[in-house]
Amino acid sequence: MKGFSVDTFEKQQAIDITVQVESCIAAEGIEDGICLIQVPHTTCGIIVNEHFDASVSKDILDCLDRIAPPDATYSHKEGNAHAHIKSTLVGSTQMLVIEDGQLMLGTWQRILFFEFDGPRQRRVWVKALEHRR
Amino acid sequence: MKGFSVDTFEKQQAIDITVQVESCIAAEGIEDGICLIQVPHTTCGIIVNEHFDASVSKDILDCLDRIAPPDATYSHKEGNAHAHIKSTLVGSTQMLVIEDGQLMLGTWQRILFFEFDGPRQRRVWVKALEHRR
Amino acid sequence: MKGFSVDTFEKQQAIDITVQVESCIAAEGIEDGICLIQVPHTTCGIIVNEHFDASVSKDILDCLDRIAPPDATYSHKEGNAHAHIKSTLVGSTQMLVIEDGQLMLGTWQRILFFEFDGPRQRRVWVKALEHRR
Repeated sequence: MKGFSVDTFEKQQAIDITVQVESCIAAEGIEDGICLIQVPHTTCGIIVNEHFDASVSKDILDCLDRIAPPDATYSHKEGNAHAHIKSTLVGSTQMLVIEDGQLMLGTWQRILFFEFDGPRQRRVWVKALEHRR
Repeated sequence: MKGFSVDTFEKQQAIDITVQVESCIAAEGIEDGICLIQVPHTTCGIIVNEHFDASVSKDILDCLDRIAPPDATYSHKEGNAHAHIKSTLVGSTQMLVIEDGQLMLGTWQRILFFEFDGPRQRRVWVKALEHRR
Repeated sequence: MKGFSVDTFEKQQAIDITVQVESCIAAEGIEDGICLIQVPHTTCGIIVNEHFDASVSKDILDCLDRIAPPDATYSHKEGNAHAHIKSTLVGSTQMLVIEDGQLMLGTWQRILFFEFDGPRQRRVWVKALEHRR
């Protein structure tokens, strides 16, 4: 397994981690298979979507804030219940295809780390599995 | 990797792609393992749920419209911000078990392509990985 | 593929299934790879989040009830349309890393079965894939 750290600087933000994930896959030396990206945290998430226009991530964060407002009343009393809910909705893992040693993404797809309870230092795990020929 | 195209005819709709995914797995010749279904797009998604009664998909689309109304005001100015949000919430990949050369699904489970910004021609990628015996 | 049953006792509830999933991985004898957890049902889900404080799951269920109220009007007339929507939003599968024969989870991460249309007896499938060295 490979991995890397992500430093977040805001309470909530989206960070493009595509290049770091690609480096992990190159280091694993997988030519053909699949790649699992997992965060070992419960108040952040991983998504695959557009980041050429960063306003897409802003709209996603704004919508998640409407679904689970940070200042609403929750049973969990640590002040980050909204972040647990958002992590559940977007998910803490992504799986992607690897071919010819390359992570396969659509033209507009990027891998994004979503922080919902920052700022913090986070870890991202990358596990690549080779297809058996 | 195998794949196929999906032509969507409406702005938003659900299309059962189970048969096409099964054909890809048969063509890959995987007897035992897992299957990754990935769309290389940022305004559609893949889900696994009931489709015997198509009204289930209608309820899902209606609920997503309440979460992210197409005509609300967003930062992303291309008119499809709602579709990026929906894609993020339902996800652009699914992983399923393969056994005895068969895609393993529950009685009521079907693989559904969800279009949120159609009509368009879309691609679906299918990558199957063999279990190492 | 390994698997186990989960008996749910309430209409909606979260049940920690981490120990059962770990037993399946041990039984598969996978040292290094990935693990797919899949429910063959359309009105429940699998998530990875905190369960040390059970109020986190309560907040997640409450938020999902606001998104898709059980008593709202839906097209699907079986009374469980809200459960299909929740299953779609949280997902019916999870993928996790396996290393040194251990399921890799963060400090606060647990694997949770979410029932949205209980009480019922449910099945959980666990498929582990070995990394090719």
